[in-house]
Amino acid sequence: MGKTLIFGHKSPDTDTICSALAYAYLKKEIGVDAEAVRLGEPNKETQYALDFFKMEAPRFIEKVDGDVEEVILVDHNEFQQSVDNIRDVRIAEVIDHHRIANFETKDPLYFRAEPVGCTATILNKIFKEKQVAIPKEIAGLLVSAIISDSLLFKSPTCTKEDEDAARELAEIAGIDLEAYGLDMLKAGTDLGDKSVAELLEMDAKTFEMGGGHVVIAQVNAIDLDEVYKRKAEFEEEIAKVIEKDNLSLFLLVVTDILNSNSDVLAMGKESAKVESAFDVSLSDNRALLKGVVSRKKQIVTNLTDAFKA
Amino acid sequence: MGKTLIFGHKSPDTDTICSALAYAYLKKEIGVDAEAVRLGEPNKETQYALDFFKMEAPRFIEKVDGDVEEVILVDHNEFQQSVDNIRDVRIAEVIDHHRIANFETKDPLYFRAEPVGCTATILNKIFKEKQVAIPKEIAGLLVSAIISDSLLFKSPTCTKEDEDAARELAEIAGIDLEAYGLDMLKAGTDLGDKSVAELLEMDAKTFEMGGGHVVIAQVNAIDLDEVYKRKAEFEEEIAKVIEKDNLSLFLLVVTDILNSNSDVLAMGKESAKVESAFDVSLSDNRALLKGVVSRKKQIVTNLTDAFKA
Repeated sequence: MGKTLIFGHKSPDTDTICSALAYAYLKKEIGVDAEAVRLGEPNKETQYALDFFKMEAPRFIEKVDGDVEEVILVDHNEFQQSVDNIRDVRIAEVIDHHRIANFETKDPLYFRAEPVGCTATILNKIFKEKQVAIPKEIAGLLVSAIISDSLLFKSPTCTKEDEDAARELAEIAGIDLEAYGLDMLKAGTDLGDKSVAELLEMDAKTFEMGGGHVVIAQVNAIDLDEVYKRKAEFEEEIAKVIEKDNLSLFLLVVTDILNSNSDVLAMGKESAKVESAFDVSLSDNRALLKGVVSRKKQIVTNLTDAFKA
Repeated sequence: MGKTLIFGHKSPDTDTICSALAYAYLKKEIGVDAEAVRLGEPNKETQYALDFFKMEAPRFIEKVDGDVEEVILVDHNEFQQSVDNIRDVRIAEVIDHHRIANFETKDPLYFRAEPVGCTATILNKIFKEKQVAIPKEIAGLLVSAIISDSLLFKSPTCTKEDEDAARELAEIAGIDLEAYGLDMLKAGTDLGDKSVAELLEMDAKTFEMGGGHVVIAQVNAIDLDEVYKRKAEFEEEIAKVIEKDNLSLFLLVVTDILNSNSDVLAMGKESAKVESAFDVSLSDNRALLKGVVSRKKQIVTNLTDAFKA
């Protein structure tokens, strides 16, 4: 019997890395030959959490090969976000909190998706169901994932279940939730060594709206002015991407994690849709969206409606 | 706030009808305005279970309309098995035990699939998790579903969890599992009033094998000779279907539920594949497949391999 690999999505975030590590720990405790792996580099926020709890990042894999019996997906299900040869491997389980799309199996499996803000919140329940005690460092990883996905409970994707789980886990991990959380989020906003092109790609997703392609890239920040010092460079690079990929709109969302606002930079022939979607005026391509932090629940929803109007 | 409709697949079987009724009961107990509905006529086996526990069949619907907030799918997820306008409604939950395919949502949802033999086995767990007591008649419906999907634990799809759940539920329902189970399964084999065409369509599924279309129809029986009295009529009708739908193989599987064998009738230009798949010889188009009862786990698997060889 071969090994079980557990991994999250490409361009990994803190939930994807930490949930893979935590679920692999649980599986090993109940006798499964499991290993957490990753499909990309951990970001700085994730690295902060790993270092804080003295944990190693999972091993990087390009594709699933060798003596692997089956795989478990955490924090994603859409095949284009998964390992390249996902269609050739047996998927034994999925633990996720996203919509379901572009996913299929030949055989029945254990698939558990719940409409909560973070995969780690579901894993916290599974540890209880399986009656496996959560060690301090695993609790630390799980609470880091919840802090990350919920921006310390400020995102509208955050549910009461997420917050309750985070408070429980913070106690086991022995951390001050607010202080640790802010330090971890801040670590993720250290963008100094990233090129403009890297920043635009770091967390970018493509959507179909009004018959055209819209890219929404998101970056977390503490100091918006610091990010916008490179505005001219951003604009130059975005213009190239719009041209190359024939986009109708490119939206860079710079999210102020302390004040829970986003300052957006919009370019493309449909950029007026941003004005109608959020009832703002773009000035020099920029606008402040007060209280907006969630791409999924706030930006995509409002923009989709604006394109339909 | 509108209603929540709960339903299983088209051509409903006992698990689909009983799981919808049981889950609607649970949802109402926890304050949801839920109603079980059905997408087709209950078969005789299901009707036996409903009558025995003095329950009404759910209301039939053609499509989802009126004041419906959201729907919950039980015992299926593939859209072609669901209500025709499934793409226009909000799916809040899925509780299932099948493979996942041809399913997608715009938003996160509660999706719970487990690799067990019956949806009712998962529902039995959900009643415990939600701490809702299972009344006698609901236990009766749930145990009927497990008996049906597992052919009284003889199908290779049946897991220990299914059998344990059935024994628990039989106690609450106050029935003798073996005696009631056999009576219920026998009720489902009363095919006297069905035309040959109806029998062939009652539980037929189409598969792609070797670049052609293969139909596998299954009928449960106590007395195989009784079914095969109409062999000439079956052959005439099957020949018509093969011609009309350009099938490479039509396999009628008549399953002896007492002895756990199947006697198959194979027609079409690829009927020799049945001989190689099961190492038997067809005589007058018929062959006995010893120990074969599951279309999913035995027939489809072996035939697929034979088409690849």
